[in-house]
Amino acid sequence: MSSPVHRVSLGDTWSRQMNPDIESERCKQSFDVERLTNILDRGAQNTAIRRKVESIICSDPEFSLKDIYFMSQNERYEKAIRHKVHFLMIAQRLGWSNDGPELHYAYRTLAGNMGLTLHSVFQKALGSLGSEEQIAKWGKLCEEFQIITAYAQTELGHGTYLQGLETEATYDAATQEFVMHSPTLTAIKWWPGDLGLTATHALVLAQLICSGARQGMHAFIVPIRSLQDHTPLPGITVGDIGPRMSFEHSDNGFLQLDHVRIPRENMLSRFAEVLPDGTYIRLGTAQSNYLSMVVVRVGLLLEEILPQLQKACVIATRYSVIRRQSRIQPSEPEAKVLDYQTQQQKLFPQLAMAYAFHFRAVTLLEFFQHAYSAILDGDFSLLPELHALSSGLKALVSEYCTEGAEVCRRACGGHGFSKLSGLPSLVTRVTASCTYEGENTVLYLQMARFLVNNHLQAQMSPDTTSTRSPPQSVTYLTAPVLARCPAQQAADFLCPELYTAAWAHMVARLIKDSVHHLQTLTQSGVDRHTAWNQTTVLLVQAAKAHCYYVILQSFIQTLEKLEDEPEIRQVLKRLCDLYALHGMLTNMGDFLHDGFLSGAQADMARAAYLNLLPLIRKDAILLTDAFDFTDHCLYSALGCYDGNAYERLFEWAQRSPINTKGNSAYEKYLRPLLQRAKL
Amino acid sequence: MSSPVHRVSLGDTWSRQMNPDIESERCKQSFDVERLTNILDRGAQNTAIRRKVESIICSDPEFSLKDIYFMSQNERYEKAIRHKVHFLMIAQRLGWSNDGPELHYAYRTLAGNMGLTLHSVFQKALGSLGSEEQIAKWGKLCEEFQIITAYAQTELGHGTYLQGLETEATYDAATQEFVMHSPTLTAIKWWPGDLGLTATHALVLAQLICSGARQGMHAFIVPIRSLQDHTPLPGITVGDIGPRMSFEHSDNGFLQLDHVRIPRENMLSRFAEVLPDGTYIRLGTAQSNYLSMVVVRVGLLLEEILPQLQKACVIATRYSVIRRQSRIQPSEPEAKVLDYQTQQQKLFPQLAMAYAFHFRAVTLLEFFQHAYSAILDGDFSLLPELHALSSGLKALVSEYCTEGAEVCRRACGGHGFSKLSGLPSLVTRVTASCTYEGENTVLYLQMARFLVNNHLQAQMSPDTTSTRSPPQSVTYLTAPVLARCPAQQAADFLCPELYTAAWAHMVARLIKDSVHHLQTLTQSGVDRHTAWNQTTVLLVQAAKAHCYYVILQSFIQTLEKLEDEPEIRQVLKRLCDLYALHGMLTNMGDFLHDGFLSGAQADMARAAYLNLLPLIRKDAILLTDAFDFTDHCLYSALGCYDGNAYERLFEWAQRSPINTKGNSAYEKYLRPLLQRAKL
Repeated sequence: MSSPVHRVSLGDTWSRQMNPDIESERCKQSFDVERLTNILDRGAQNTAIRRKVESIICSDPEFSLKDIYFMSQNERYEKAIRHKVHFLMIAQRLGWSNDGPELHYAYRTLAGNMGLTLHSVFQKALGSLGSEEQIAKWGKLCEEFQIITAYAQTELGHGTYLQGLETEATYDAATQEFVMHSPTLTAIKWWPGDLGLTATHALVLAQLICSGARQGMHAFIVPIRSLQDHTPLPGITVGDIGPRMSFEHSDNGFLQLDHVRIPRENMLSRFAEVLPDGTYIRLGTAQSNYLSMVVVRVGLLLEEILPQLQKACVIATRYSVIRRQSRIQPSEPEAKVLDYQTQQQKLFPQLAMAYAFHFRAVTLLEFFQHAYSAILDGDFSLLPELHALSSGLKALVSEYCTEGAEVCRRACGGHGFSKLSGLPSLVTRVTASCTYEGENTVLYLQMARFLVNNHLQAQMSPDTTSTRSPPQSVTYLTAPVLARCPAQQAADFLCPELYTAAWAHMVARLIKDSVHHLQTLTQSGVDRHTAWNQTTVLLVQAAKAHCYYVILQSFIQTLEKLEDEPEIRQVLKRLCDLYALHGMLTNMGDFLHDGFLSGAQADMARAAYLNLLPLIRKDAILLTDAFDFTDHCLYSALGCYDGNAYERLFEWAQRSPINTKGNSAYEKYLRPLLQRAKL
Repeated sequence: MSSPVHRVSLGDTWSRQMNPDIESERCKQSFDVERLTNILDRGAQNTAIRRKVESIICSDPEFSLKDIYFMSQNERYEKAIRHKVHFLMIAQRLGWSNDGPELHYAYRTLAGNMGLTLHSVFQKALGSLGSEEQIAKWGKLCEEFQIITAYAQTELGHGTYLQGLETEATYDAATQEFVMHSPTLTAIKWWPGDLGLTATHALVLAQLICSGARQGMHAFIVPIRSLQDHTPLPGITVGDIGPRMSFEHSDNGFLQLDHVRIPRENMLSRFAEVLPDGTYIRLGTAQSNYLSMVVVRVGLLLEEILPQLQKACVIATRYSVIRRQSRIQPSEPEAKVLDYQTQQQKLFPQLAMAYAFHFRAVTLLEFFQHAYSAILDGDFSLLPELHALSSGLKALVSEYCTEGAEVCRRACGGHGFSKLSGLPSLVTRVTASCTYEGENTVLYLQMARFLVNNHLQAQMSPDTTSTRSPPQSVTYLTAPVLARCPAQQAADFLCPELYTAAWAHMVARLIKDSVHHLQTLTQSGVDRHTAWNQTTVLLVQAAKAHCYYVILQSFIQTLEKLEDEPEIRQVLKRLCDLYALHGMLTNMGDFLHDGFLSGAQADMARAAYLNLLPLIRKDAILLTDAFDFTDHCLYSALGCYDGNAYERLFEWAQRSPINTKGNSAYEKYLRPLLQRAKL
C-alpha cells in the first residue's frame, strides 16, 4: 500500500516500527479507508490538495509544533503569528489565493495554531454588510495586509443579546463623522480575537444614533493602532483580556473607545445608510446586520468545532487498542481496553456523532451557499430557516462535541489528563464553542421560536394548502406520524424508516407539548413573555430533539447516495444506527412517555444498540484512520498512527523544562525544611 | 450584622461597596445563613476554628494567591512549596498538630495550592499497612519532615488494575534485602504527586517475589533522593511527567528503578511479612493492601472533590444576579440572568447536588471511622460494604461534580472561559478526580459486583432469616416495593416517601434486570466472564442509580435531624426535592419502563420540579453564601462576595504580563508584514 503523508509519523525513533497491537487492527480491512477519506473530503481532488498542503507544512521546521505544550501564552501567541506570516509567504510563492482551500487545510494541519484568523471574519462581515465600494476599498487593504483586522462585537457586559450592546456611534452631521464611544465600563469591547495585541483596525458593532434617534446595531470600521508604530491611536485603550481556558495563542482583547471620530464612509452600508445630513435609510430587513454572524457560525462547524471531536476519537481509539488492562478471561493476557463493552459504549457513540455531524455540516454549508447568494441579491425568504438551522446546529454540535471530546479524554484514564496526550487542549478548545458566537441556550431558543411559529402556522391552516409551504427542514413535522412503534424484535430497530419515524413522532410531540404549555399559561392569565420564560426548559428540549433529528435525516440521505459503495455504506450504516439508537436510549423517557414505545420495545432498542458495539469494534481503528489527521496536527503522545504511546510519553516528558532546568524550590525551601528537622 | 472574615473581600477598591444587584438578594433572609454554615461545618466550634485559620492566612502576604492565573507550572510549584513550608512554621508557632483541623482548613483557604500533600497519603498508608514499629519509626521521620514522601502506585502502563502492576520487589535472603526493579518501560511509576521534584522517599507498590513465588502487591519504603543534596540515588531515574490539564503546582512524577536494594524492614508488614529466610506469612485478608486506597478515597470527597463544585455554584450564582441580559418583559430593564428559567435549570440542580453530596460524604466518613477501627483490630466484616460505598460514591460524586462545575462555568457565558473567573481551574481540577484514585467505570463495577452478590444472596434465602443480614446500605432493596406510583398531582412529588419509593423501585428493577441479563447469557452457553463483560453497561447503570439513591436517603435523614430548625429545614427540603426530581427527570425512561410511573405522572413530576425553581431562586445567593468560602480561596473576578465582577475583570486583565511586557511579535513579524504590503 502506498504511504501517503498522513502515515508519516513525527520522525522520532519509534515511528519506524508499528506497535503490533495497532498493526493487527489494520490487517483486515472490511472497506477501503482511502475511499472513505475521499468522501469525507468531498472528493479525491480535495484529499490530494490537502495532502499536498500537509506535506509542505509537515516538512517545514518553521511550522513545527514541537514542545507546544510547554509554552507560555506569549510564546504561543508569537508562534501563531509566525506561522501565519510564514504561511502567507509560502502562499504567495505558490500562488495560493487568500480564500482558497489551502488556507483551510493549513489551519487544519497546524491544529488552529495560526494568528490573524479574525481577519477573515472581518472580510466575511465586510462581504455581507459592506457596499460594493467598501468591499473594493477595504477588501483590497485586507487582502494585501496593509491593515490587520478584528471583529469587535461582544462587550464586557453584553454578549448574545445584541440589542443590549452599549457602544455608541453618534453621527455628527457638522463634520460628517461618527463619534465612537464606550459610555460605561460594561460597554468596553471584550473577547474579540486578534484585538489584544495585533489588529490595526476593528469592525466595531455599535448602536447607531443619528439625528437624535437610535437606529439599532450597525458595523463601523475603526482604526485602532498606528500604521507607523502600532501604538494605540488617540482615544483608544486596548489590551489582552488575560489568560483563557485555551486559545492561548489568540490575543483576545478589550477595546475602550473615548469619543473616537471616524468618517461617515466607515459605516458598512449594504443594508443601511446615513446620508450626509444625518437621514437614516434602511435598505434591508432589520435582521440584515445579524447576517455576518450566520456566515461565521456555518463556517465554524467544519473548520473549528468538529475536528476537535474527530481528533479526540482518533486519539482515544488508538490508545484503547494498545492499552491493556485487566483480564476478561482469567486464563488470557490482559485485554485491550477497547474490548470492554463499557469502553465501546464510551467511544463509539462519539465516533458515530463525529460522522453524523460531518455530513450534516456539509448539508448546512450547501444550503447556506444557496440561501446566502439569494440574500445578497435581496431575497430574504430563506433567512429565517437559515438562521434557525445555523443557530440550532451550532448549539447542538458544539454541545455534543464538547461532551464527546471529554468522554474520549476520560476514556484514556490518567494519561488523558496529561497535556502530552493532546486531549486536554481539544477539550478546553472545543468547550469555548458552547458560548462563543452565540450562547447555546439562546441559540436553542432561536430554533424553538422558529419551530413554534411554524407549528402555529400549520395549525392555522391545517387542511387548506397554505399559500406558503413550510420550510423544508420542518416538513417532516407535518407528515402523518405513527401512534405506536411497530417493532417486534431487536433487529427492527436497525431500520432507518422505523427509527426516523420514532424520532419524528417524539419531536412533534415535544413541540406540541411546549405550545400547549405556552397556551395553557396564557389562557390562565399569565402574560405571553412570562409564559415564554416559564416554558423555556421545554422549548430547549424540543429544539434539541429537532436538531438531533435533522442530523439523523441527513446521515440517512448520505447513506442513500452510497449505493455504489456497499462496504462503506454498511460500515457507515452501523454508525447511523448507533447514532439513532444512542439518542433514543439517552432520551428514552420521551419515547415511552405517551406509549409510542413499550418497555419491551425499549429493551429491544437497547439490545440492538449493544449488539452494534462489537460490530463497530472491528472497524474502529479504520474509521478513525479515515479522518486522515497527520500525527503533526494531532500532536498527541497517545494517539500517533504507529501506536507507540508509552515510548513517546516517556520521551516527551523528559523534555519538559521543569526537568531540564534545576529545582529552584529545593535551595529556597526544601533544604532548609529538611535540615531544620535534623537539628 | 457582624462581619466575619469571609465577608472581607480582596482588599481592592470596589470591595468597599456592594453591587446593588447582589445586595438586594441578601436583604430578606428566609433563614439564618450563619446557622446553616455551622451545620455544614459540623458544629459552630469548627466554623470558629476555620475562620481563625482563614483570618491568619488571608492577612499574611506570604499566602497571597495574587496573579496566580498568570504563573507558569514552575512558578506554581514553587509557590505551593513555599505555602506549605510557611504554613508549617506557623503551625509550629501556634502549636497546631500535624493532622489537626487547621491543616485541612489551610488547604481549603489556599484552594489546594499547597505542596507536600502526598506526605499525608504516605502517612495514611503507613498507618493502615505498617506494623507498630514501622509506624513509630517512619511516622516520626515524616512528622518532623526529616524525610519528604510520596505514594508511588500507578505505572505508565498500569492503573486501576493493581494486579497488573509490574514493578518487582524480589527478596534476597542472602542480604536480607528486597531488590526493587522496573522490568519494562510500562513498569515505570507514573503520576505520583510530589515525586517529580520533591520527595526523598517513596512508598512503592510492587509485586512481592520471595522464594521464587509471586505473592501479589505489597508496599515498600524506598529512599529515592539523597538527604544530603537531593540528587537521585543510584539506580533511580526520576522526574516530572510533563504538564497536566491542571494541578500545575503539583510535581507529578515518574520513577524508574534499576535493581535498587532496600532492607527487609522496609516492607510494610501489618498484614503480611517476609521472614529473614524468605518465608512469606499472610496476617490479613488478600484485600488488606487495598485498604490505603479506601482511606484516601473517603478523605478526597470532602476535602478535594466537593469544594470544586460548591465554589463553582458560588461563583456562577453570584455572577448570575449581577449579569443582566435581554428582557423578559419588553417594558422592563434587562433581567438578571438568574431570573431565566433556563439559568435556574442549569444552576439549581448543581446546588442541590452540592448539598446532597456534602451530607452523604459526612455519613460516609462516619461509617468509615467506625469500620476502619474494626479493620485495624482485625475485623474485616465491614470491608466489602466500605469498599463498595467508597468506590461507588467516589465515582458518582466525582462524575457529577465535574459535570456540574462545567455547567456552572458555561452558565457564565464567555466570562466563564476566562481563567480570571476562577471557573476553568475548578473544572480542570475536579475532572481529574474521575480518573485518579480508581477510574470511575472500574469503581462503578466494584459497586455493581457488591450489589449483584447481595442480590444473589437474598435470592438464595428469600424466606428464611438469613444467618447474615444484608449490609445496611442495601437493605432498602429487600424491602417490599410498590408496583405503581400512587401520585395523583404534582404536589405529591414533594413527598420524600413517594420519591424514595420510586427510586427504590427503579434501582431494584435495574439490579434484577442486570442479574437476569447475566443469567440469560450464561444459560445460553456464554461463559461467565464474557457474560459479565456483556452486561457491564447495564451494571454501571444499576450501580449509579443505587449511589444516587443512597445519597438521597442520607439527605432525607439529615432533614429529619433538623426538627428544631424549621426555616433551614424548609430551604434544604426544597433542594432535596429538587435533587430527587432532577434525577428522575433525567432518567425518566427507567421510571416509565415498567409502568411504575405513567406519562401523566411524569408530567406531574416535571411540573413539581419546575415549580421548585422560582422558590429556590429566592434563597439562591444565601444558599451559596452559606458555604462560606472567602474571596481569597475563590480567587474569582466573577464570584466575589461584593458582586463587583466587571470592575475586577477589567483591573485583573490589565495586570496580565502580556499587557505589561511589550509585544515581541510586532517587530519580528507584524511590522515586516504591514510594511511589505506598503511597498
